[in-house]
Amino acid sequence: MTALPLLPSAACCVSSEGAAMSVADAEGLAARLKALGDPTRLRLLSIVAGAAEQEACVCDLTESVGLSQPTVSHHLKVLTEAGFLTRSKRGTWAYYRLVPGALDAVAGALRIDA
Amino acid sequence: MTALPLLPSAACCVSSEGAAMSVADAEGLAARLKALGDPTRLRLLSIVAGAAEQEACVCDLTESVGLSQPTVSHHLKVLTEAGFLTRSKRGTWAYYRLVPGALDAVAGALRIDA
Repeated sequence: MTALPLLPSAACCVSSEGAAMSVADAEGLAARLKALGDPTRLRLLSIVAGAAEQEACVCDLTESVGLSQPTVSHHLKVLTEAGFLTRSKRGTWAYYRLVPGALDAVAGALRIDA
Repeated sequence: MTALPLLPSAACCVSSEGAAMSVADAEGLAARLKALGDPTRLRLLSIVAGAAEQEACVCDLTESVGLSQPTVSHHLKVLTEAGFLTRSKRGTWAYYRLVPGALDAVAGALRIDA
């Protein structure tokens, strides 16, 4: 796992600065977790993940979650900016595709060898 | 993995309601992710995870992250309410201990078999 483990590789004393995840690492991981911390966004991701080739049209996503298209587009923008989806426009509609490994990287960063 | 996989076990058509994570599951997972989506909280968790017996005194945590004790206590309360830490008071100080498996459960829920 190349992502940022919460457990430092060399366990140290509690009060040591070295035991904490660095501020920069924590900020990067927190931004991705915050993007995931919304039920509609999780549902949208789960639909894209389950779609053929892990890609879905914004039209289908809007119908699936039962919210307005501007609302759905906002959530998709947050997920895209956080690196979980890529967007491509073909004809009238925008299509969103899962970024391979992006969710796994976050999951890996949360693993702790207890 | 017993947690809520983003990828439905039976992949279906995009526009089917069945393809999306349920609203209840999404709300539960989103609440936990939101609690993790803060850099100070991630640093606090990483310190507790690296401490002896995965337990740390609020006094050491405050010193490690360099913030005021009320601020640190607020973040620890959020993590406790989200199920990542347990709190016990011994003498003057409160001690926080990592809940075994809580982070792993969130990580598992984010795994997608791409």
